[in-house]
Amino acid sequence: MSRYWSDIVHQLTPYVPGEQPKIAGLVKLNTNECPYPPSPRVLQAIAEQTGEALRLYPDPQATALREAIARHHGLKAEQVFVGNGSDEVLAHVFMALLRHEAPLLHPDISYSFYPVYARLYGITTREIPLDEQFAIRVDDYLAAPANGGIIFPNPNAPTGMALPLSEVRRLLQGNRESVVVVDEAYVDFGAESAARLVDEFPQLLVVHTLSKSRALAGLRVGYALGHPDLIEALVRVKDSFNSYPLDRLAIAGGVAAMDDVAWFEDTCRRTIATRERMAAALRDRGFEVLPSAANFVFARHPGHDGAELAAGLREQRVLVRHFRRPERIAAFLRISVGTEEQTDALLAALDTVLAR
Amino acid sequence: MSRYWSDIVHQLTPYVPGEQPKIAGLVKLNTNECPYPPSPRVLQAIAEQTGEALRLYPDPQATALREAIARHHGLKAEQVFVGNGSDEVLAHVFMALLRHEAPLLHPDISYSFYPVYARLYGITTREIPLDEQFAIRVDDYLAAPANGGIIFPNPNAPTGMALPLSEVRRLLQGNRESVVVVDEAYVDFGAESAARLVDEFPQLLVVHTLSKSRALAGLRVGYALGHPDLIEALVRVKDSFNSYPLDRLAIAGGVAAMDDVAWFEDTCRRTIATRERMAAALRDRGFEVLPSAANFVFARHPGHDGAELAAGLREQRVLVRHFRRPERIAAFLRISVGTEEQTDALLAALDTVLAR
Repeated sequence: MSRYWSDIVHQLTPYVPGEQPKIAGLVKLNTNECPYPPSPRVLQAIAEQTGEALRLYPDPQATALREAIARHHGLKAEQVFVGNGSDEVLAHVFMALLRHEAPLLHPDISYSFYPVYARLYGITTREIPLDEQFAIRVDDYLAAPANGGIIFPNPNAPTGMALPLSEVRRLLQGNRESVVVVDEAYVDFGAESAARLVDEFPQLLVVHTLSKSRALAGLRVGYALGHPDLIEALVRVKDSFNSYPLDRLAIAGGVAAMDDVAWFEDTCRRTIATRERMAAALRDRGFEVLPSAANFVFARHPGHDGAELAAGLREQRVLVRHFRRPERIAAFLRISVGTEEQTDALLAALDTVLAR
Repeated sequence: MSRYWSDIVHQLTPYVPGEQPKIAGLVKLNTNECPYPPSPRVLQAIAEQTGEALRLYPDPQATALREAIARHHGLKAEQVFVGNGSDEVLAHVFMALLRHEAPLLHPDISYSFYPVYARLYGITTREIPLDEQFAIRVDDYLAAPANGGIIFPNPNAPTGMALPLSEVRRLLQGNRESVVVVDEAYVDFGAESAARLVDEFPQLLVVHTLSKSRALAGLRVGYALGHPDLIEALVRVKDSFNSYPLDRLAIAGGVAAMDDVAWFEDTCRRTIATRERMAAALRDRGFEVLPSAANFVFARHPGHDGAELAAGLREQRVLVRHFRRPERIAAFLRISVGTEEQTDALLAALDTVLAR
């Protein structure tokens, strides 16, 4: 508290990211990072940029990166906005496209950064409950009174559950007066991307990150795909905030990551295979596991408390994420998909904890 | 224009950064980059981080970097805030500390991003004119009605002129009810830093960048120094915007840049020597050159139009910056200090243009 703070600062409840432990040797399954390294071509591209040119500003439009992303999705560069991680992209989306008189709709169980952005920019929100099976029900969004925008992750986080593309399309067909943001941070692990609908729906914005399927959480690159009018709004806000959000190394590494499709597809394939093995092993141990299309699973055990399980695993040097709220998910653990070895370690630790 | 835009987007007039030419072979003296490379220790530190660990999120608090900055200035890490370039730091400063009912004061001739931030966040501003010699006059700030904050660059941009530390102190002594931001992007080239006043004045925030004297415009690292209460406001806004603004490579490179004091001091010394030679050579050619404490000079020629001179130099493949507004500086050119060779090329090009 300080008399020097702007009023808004007193009202903020900042987002709390998953723990980044400074102790080595932990099995870290708490922040949905990729267990496999980024493409060697990414490291090569960064190494080539690590020189005298760092004295010069980067390209403020990051054109090479927007072109690489456009190539990957079969779109044009003017349909692509890039930012310093998808969290920054989302922040600009809230300011540029979701700040209207009518409330923004988002699922009640969802990425917990959404209400934080909304508070920062003074945006009213309305939470739409997931159904009893923890699924997003499109009809609930279509039935709500006038909205100033809709945002949801697909697959949803922390449930991991995917909304079929046909349902996303139905939502877009029924909601044309406000922007619909599909936050696809985890889409590459088994859901269908709405990127292919961008040419069809001018109110659609699709947000991606290189932090998950491209194994670059440490490089901070995210992007949005949409109609050039939506992209222009984001550029205007970005150019009123920071002309150069992406440094030279992130731009170079990002281009290489988008271009190395074989590496990316292999990473996704391995992650999905391990996820399915882990989900089956958890079910064998009595867990209810929601059907995941992401690089994590969301699971609860009928005989054990979520917080206690998470604490027990931590004693065994395995980190997973537990959310106390909302109440409805307090029994669940969110467990990132690790390597085969990390998964074995998780299962062994679980056996110890469950046997107590 | 689009019906999907938030109201604020229609009102924005984004900042326009200096041209980043895609053609090679130009003598680029238009964006105040450092003409000398960053420390080899920076490149080494980045190379060491360019590996598998990029799959992991960076430290959201960038503790190692804040500690290195604190060491350099003889402060504590909790007095340091870091961001993705000083432009991002300034954006958060406007939101967190300068958004009050009373207007924000800044010089009429100053960093042209200030009014852009103010518009983005709905902050009222009042411009305080520089005096006839283009100097900031502290008495004009002290005489103004109640303010919601004061911000100015020191040295000022684009004039390059420094305000003595005694005058900064006098401003702080007379203005204790609102935050005073001293934006010291160019301070290392000859002005006195207010960093040493941070322990004394709880309303003082000093902003620095690694883009100039540390030759890292391409890496995007900036920071603020101030009382822990001011830093906390910035952290709250940052954690409501983007948990991880600095990537792993920027953190590692930033630490090495702060630690290599000898390289930094040598860069400053060479830049200052060339600046003085360039200023003298410009005066020899009939220019009026404002006394610069920065890595650029601001100069006008009584017999030549500023815009025409800039265009003529561009034909000679030398880029400098010209501002059409405000009217009072339309005759001036802002010329970055380059290498000795670049300076020779500038002077030769000027001789050609002036002889026409």
